[in-house]
Amino acid sequence: MNEHTYAVIMAGGGGTRLWPVSRKETPKQLLPLLGKETLFQSTVARLERLFPPERILVVTVEEQARVMQEQAPSIPKENYLIEPAPRGTASVVALAAAVLKKRDPQAVMTIQTADHHIRNLDLFQYLLRTAFEVAEKNYLVTLGITPTFPSTGYGYIQQGEPLDGDYKYPVYKVKRFKEKPDQATAQELLRRGDHSWNSGMFVWRADVILAEIERQMPDLFRAVEEIASAWDTPQRDAVIQKLWYDLRSQTIDYGVMEKAERVAVLPAGGLGWSDVGSWDSLFEVLLPDLNGNVSVNSQHLPLDTHNALVYSVNDERLIVTIGLDDVVVVDAGDVLLVCKTDQSQKVKNIVEHLKKHHQEKYL
Amino acid sequence: MNEHTYAVIMAGGGGTRLWPVSRKETPKQLLPLLGKETLFQSTVARLERLFPPERILVVTVEEQARVMQEQAPSIPKENYLIEPAPRGTASVVALAAAVLKKRDPQAVMTIQTADHHIRNLDLFQYLLRTAFEVAEKNYLVTLGITPTFPSTGYGYIQQGEPLDGDYKYPVYKVKRFKEKPDQATAQELLRRGDHSWNSGMFVWRADVILAEIERQMPDLFRAVEEIASAWDTPQRDAVIQKLWYDLRSQTIDYGVMEKAERVAVLPAGGLGWSDVGSWDSLFEVLLPDLNGNVSVNSQHLPLDTHNALVYSVNDERLIVTIGLDDVVVVDAGDVLLVCKTDQSQKVKNIVEHLKKHHQEKYL
Repeated sequence: MNEHTYAVIMAGGGGTRLWPVSRKETPKQLLPLLGKETLFQSTVARLERLFPPERILVVTVEEQARVMQEQAPSIPKENYLIEPAPRGTASVVALAAAVLKKRDPQAVMTIQTADHHIRNLDLFQYLLRTAFEVAEKNYLVTLGITPTFPSTGYGYIQQGEPLDGDYKYPVYKVKRFKEKPDQATAQELLRRGDHSWNSGMFVWRADVILAEIERQMPDLFRAVEEIASAWDTPQRDAVIQKLWYDLRSQTIDYGVMEKAERVAVLPAGGLGWSDVGSWDSLFEVLLPDLNGNVSVNSQHLPLDTHNALVYSVNDERLIVTIGLDDVVVVDAGDVLLVCKTDQSQKVKNIVEHLKKHHQEKYL
Repeated sequence: MNEHTYAVIMAGGGGTRLWPVSRKETPKQLLPLLGKETLFQSTVARLERLFPPERILVVTVEEQARVMQEQAPSIPKENYLIEPAPRGTASVVALAAAVLKKRDPQAVMTIQTADHHIRNLDLFQYLLRTAFEVAEKNYLVTLGITPTFPSTGYGYIQQGEPLDGDYKYPVYKVKRFKEKPDQATAQELLRRGDHSWNSGMFVWRADVILAEIERQMPDLFRAVEEIASAWDTPQRDAVIQKLWYDLRSQTIDYGVMEKAERVAVLPAGGLGWSDVGSWDSLFEVLLPDLNGNVSVNSQHLPLDTHNALVYSVNDERLIVTIGLDDVVVVDAGDVLLVCKTDQSQKVKNIVEHLKKHHQEKYL
């Protein structure tokens, strides 16, 4: 990796799929879901294998930036790009690209999410190196995840012809982006074998993605160009306040990628990738014991218990389980969740119920 | 009931079957297992339907007496008989009988336990009235519980001939006491229909039980006579300290009842009696909702949950259950227990494990 390569961590999101531990105030990426480390910290550590901290940027909102600076003190403060308000991933990408291009016209950047987990760090490193090589050829490169089940929760990327070039890892032209499919379509896509999950990880030259944004979202392009010009001047706050709130909230996938030209995909199998999107995903991310039990930050005393995940915010509390199979126990202090593992997606119903009944303190 | 009738509540015990809520320091009878009321409070309330508080005595240990006086302020302080140390129910009964007989030579007394639950209060009242009538005829009367399943956890009482006399409720001579049976024997006893569970509730004249104690346990008799003589004098403490510790620890059943003469039993069906001996017994004691769920002192938010008992010492905490059947969730603050209902007796294995590994703070 040369001195023009950068990593941009997108870390603005909230989300309540890991409720009751993830809350409005404490989003998933700032939680020690893996034990001592937060997902944000492990994302930074993963990228520091490839980038010096001066070339790692973080786009986030004001409230989260403070905590992140404590969690990852190696990243310089000026590398935090603060969104005044969430305006979708297209706006985040455009802002980061415009600021980077001003600082370094030859910048090549990867977009990474702060709240995913990757087990196979060596493979991640190889993949990213190849993706940067492809991006140097003016491609918009996406990292695809080889599906392991017919998920209806992710968008898919269909690969076309292999890309010409002597790459260490197979690279394909992208034929088509496909939004989250229904169950039957997901089965079909899995069977065909030429579709990857859209992981939300990208690599591209700053000038190439900006050109594509200019073509498809000219308003956004003009706004971020103006903001970037003011970025390292005293006018930054005034300009961003003036322009940011009027941006249309849009995802980079729908807003740019689906109709972009020169898009490539690296389908990654065996990366051990997880978006840690629900409690049951922790069984994949962490190593269960011989009874299939996983204990995070907790004192768990299991008796005749199998495939139980026990997560606690208080490791002084003793959590005893007897005669249980396939359960998730989450002790969030003021809320306790006990849930059959295969129903952990119903946590969102509980969150909706609490919203509806104005139980704000539990949200 | 006349002015010579008394109730004696035995409340010395500890027990960890309702761990992690019942602890060394907070025994079962002092816990609000039924919601607002503790088992001790509901025992007092049940007896106050028949006895004025001045004729209700409590035998317990020093540490518990203070809490009990707070929980049931109606009972006069001098009605608390303090055991210096636990010496079995025979010693408790003998002490109470000797003290009562000194105060009232015509005393008739019922022995009641502080940690049982009785749902049908009217029937209890009728039964006890009849039992007192029988006791006036110099019988040692036991209240039997008509078995509803082949329990191996209780002693049994075999009834013989009906007792002569015009009683409102059937009374039988006792043929035999039987200690806790094995499973096959329990099945056989249930099938025969002439056996009741030994509830540990008795009614007798103080002088009659003392005569029987004198015959079978003369050392105990002499000790409690000497203690009772000193009871309402300044010498009480000195005498009890001198004599109590040398008493042999013995149960009233084994020490006296099994070989006693003139023993009668009132077999009670439909009393709704429970010794609240394990968490699953709360399903019988309290009224479940239409999904079979029981919530005690807790904010329980169930989703697709059936036959769940949720007990908490902290009603500020929200307890969410999703997709669970037949579980007990007990939040004791420093310990959380999640247990399949039919395995709730395994709580004792956990307690043993914690003892063995010197986890005193959780005991």
